[in-house]
Amino acid sequence: MNKKNKKVNASILIIGNEILSGRTQDKNVSFISNWLNSKCGISVQEVRIIPDHQKTIAKNVLELSKKFNYVFTTGGIGPTHDDITAISISKAFKVKYEFHKEAYFILEKYYGKKKFNDGRKKMAKMPRGAKLIYNPSSAAPGFMTKNVLSLPGVPSILNSMIENCKRYLIKGLKTHSKTISLYTVESNIAKKLGQIQKEYKKFVDIGSYPFFRLGKIGVAVVTRSTSLSKLKSVNKKIIKMVNFKKIQILKI
Amino acid sequence: MNKKNKKVNASILIIGNEILSGRTQDKNVSFISNWLNSKCGISVQEVRIIPDHQKTIAKNVLELSKKFNYVFTTGGIGPTHDDITAISISKAFKVKYEFHKEAYFILEKYYGKKKFNDGRKKMAKMPRGAKLIYNPSSAAPGFMTKNVLSLPGVPSILNSMIENCKRYLIKGLKTHSKTISLYTVESNIAKKLGQIQKEYKKFVDIGSYPFFRLGKIGVAVVTRSTSLSKLKSVNKKIIKMVNFKKIQILKI
Repeated sequence: MNKKNKKVNASILIIGNEILSGRTQDKNVSFISNWLNSKCGISVQEVRIIPDHQKTIAKNVLELSKKFNYVFTTGGIGPTHDDITAISISKAFKVKYEFHKEAYFILEKYYGKKKFNDGRKKMAKMPRGAKLIYNPSSAAPGFMTKNVLSLPGVPSILNSMIENCKRYLIKGLKTHSKTISLYTVESNIAKKLGQIQKEYKKFVDIGSYPFFRLGKIGVAVVTRSTSLSKLKSVNKKIIKMVNFKKIQILKI
Repeated sequence: MNKKNKKVNASILIIGNEILSGRTQDKNVSFISNWLNSKCGISVQEVRIIPDHQKTIAKNVLELSKKFNYVFTTGGIGPTHDDITAISISKAFKVKYEFHKEAYFILEKYYGKKKFNDGRKKMAKMPRGAKLIYNPSSAAPGFMTKNVLSLPGVPSILNSMIENCKRYLIKGLKTHSKTISLYTVESNIAKKLGQIQKEYKKFVDIGSYPFFRLGKIGVAVVTRSTSLSKLKSVNKKIIKMVNFKKIQILKI
């Protein structure tokens, strides 16, 4: 499973009217993205947020699963009528939507036979052939269909399940990053930073992000690379430039 | 400009490696989506988060601009090398990427001729024919190209500019919503809620979202509709069901 030295990517598909409408602030993108990079060397290349609509979910799942090594879906795997992720993925891949024996067993044991009502049974229905992602918080498992891993939308539950995704993932090269925070404005370093980026085009991504802290204006220069040595050498160049321009460094 | 009684939709395209990598938590989606619905009756139907990559930006801009009435882009309109939203949109629509006279004038006046360096001049370069979105915080204007409105990524600046988008937008029907918070579990109301949703399929969207507050488990039932009367009648039904089941209401 453990093929090193290659780039592995993923996308995240956030399913939920509550995120789209602005009612709920998404917190899963940054959590999943950070976890994937730091623990698995997988870099997230695209995120989509879409409504609870079967055809829309199916279409996006198919598109993203062709485009990226993995797709992580969040949301829509609970017991209510608006939880339609599993049936939509079944339609996308044209496989049966049916009870998963082990999931059924887990849920029946968790709730007890008497309290295992139709809503709860629904959480055991998945695309045929799905592999389970165990849930240490609230029993109802996530599942993996082909290269698509489906997790719940509630951040605390999702967070508790993420380690259980690891066994299904091929590891890639971790992206290392470094932030250099400066007391300056972007246009003061734009030209030189652009030149350094050009020089390291193939190996390092340089990002520049203005910030306002304690009434002072600053710029966070973020360098990202799978090569630690290239990262070090590009950071040296940036600091040299900063010193030359007599810019105050807030934090390295 | 003001065509009422119709559905108008939009999508949001978040441009930025810093959001994708998980380094920065996006805050613009919920702000824009809430503003669009409450002030303009425009509902956001899709969000994408993509990297600072010219071809990727151009491709997504084109796709979304065909699919939705409006596209809002955030990020990538500053002075540094990684700010490539304007040139990418120019490529997408096959129009020239050139200085916008008024934007140039605004920025030259703001910085003064001596301090108007190349980085700052870059912020006046836009797709030919773009209309300006004025920026009361930091001068550099956003711009609208066809049905695509481009705003900066820094939330405080974006927030200060949003009212200036209004003049370019056709208004639609506002989606009203109501949240009923209950002390219960989803599976306890799933069946009945599904039946009510079926009955109101065409007019009201019912969402069900579990929450954990002060150690107690609850469900927020959110109803959404462009018709206030349908919303009221569906909420009556839900409360009747809740009372029948003797479920404690936390908040209506």
